[in-house]
Formats: sequence, structure tokens, C-alpha cells
Amino acid sequence: MAKIIVEIMPKPEILDPQGKAVAGVLQRLGHERITGVRIGKRFEVEVDGEVDDALLASIAEVAADVFSNPVIEDVVSVRAEEA
Amino acid sequence: MAKIIVEIMPKPEILDPQGKAVAGVLQRLGHERITGVRIGKRFEVEVDGEVDDALLASIAEVAADVFSNPVIEDVVSVRAEEA
Repeated sequence: MAKIIVEIMPKPEILDPQGKAVAGVLQRLGHERITGVRIGKRFEVEVDGEVDDALLASIAEVAADVFSNPVIEDVVSVRAEEA
Repeated sequence: MAKIIVEIMPKPEILDPQGKAVAGVLQRLGHERITGVRIGKRFEVEVDGEVDDALLASIAEVAADVFSNPVIEDVVSVRAEEA
């Protein structure tokens, strides 16, 4: 059994009110070096057998079609998790 | 301006109904090699200046205290994003 990690973030031009609120709280808690926070999703996909390019390509398709909303989100990375 | 990536996942022993539902849909769509899906969060923290160990340590603390619920979630990684 292997794992493929898919990372998805809101598109840069999309407002992220939740991230903005968290950044504001952190600055008030004294974390002055933090200038912004954006929140996205991380998927761990467990697969049978070894990870090959064909499987990564099919998971990248799943990431674009099922895991993300292409209007407001970008698939940032699709990678095999190091064992 | 630099970025620190924080990845958070539900603890392995915690049921992930959303992930289970997504895995079921993918298997019905013909992705037989997919045996499971778990869904977590990915934070991009924008910071002023360079990333050093002290800053990574303070962001790891923020990840444990603010970004995650330690009862049901694990902080999987805290890393500087490659430029």
C-alpha cells in the first residue's frame, strides 16, 4: 500500500476570509512576522501496489475533477509520499 | 517575504467519513487502485524576512495551538516553501 499526497489551495486572486481572520489573531498574539495565512486542503490517497507515472497522472485528474473546484482552487502538488 | 507550509491531518484512529465517501465515489468511477482517502488541511503562512529555525519553531507552536485540534488532529509537517 502506498500513499499519494494531493495539495489544493484557493487561487491567489480569491479572497480567503478564514485565512485573514487567523492571520489577524496571530498578529494580535504577538506573531508580528506573520503577514498572511491561506488555508487549503491536503488529501492522502491510499493506493494498491507501487506508484508509477500513469497512476500519478490519473490521481492528478481526480484532483482536478473531484478534489478541487477549478473555478476557485488550484491543485498545488500531486506527489508520492516517501515511505 | 517567505512562506512556511503547515500540513495537518486527522489522527489515524479518527474516522474520516468525508474521506470514506470520496473513496467510495472514486472506486465506483473505476479507480480500483484507490483503497482509501483522508482529508486534512494545508496552511500557507506568509512571513516577513528569512525563515530560520526559531521562526519554524514558533510556527510549529502556532500549528499545534491554533491551526490544529490536538485531540483529533496531528501536525504532519512544518516546512519552509522552496522559492
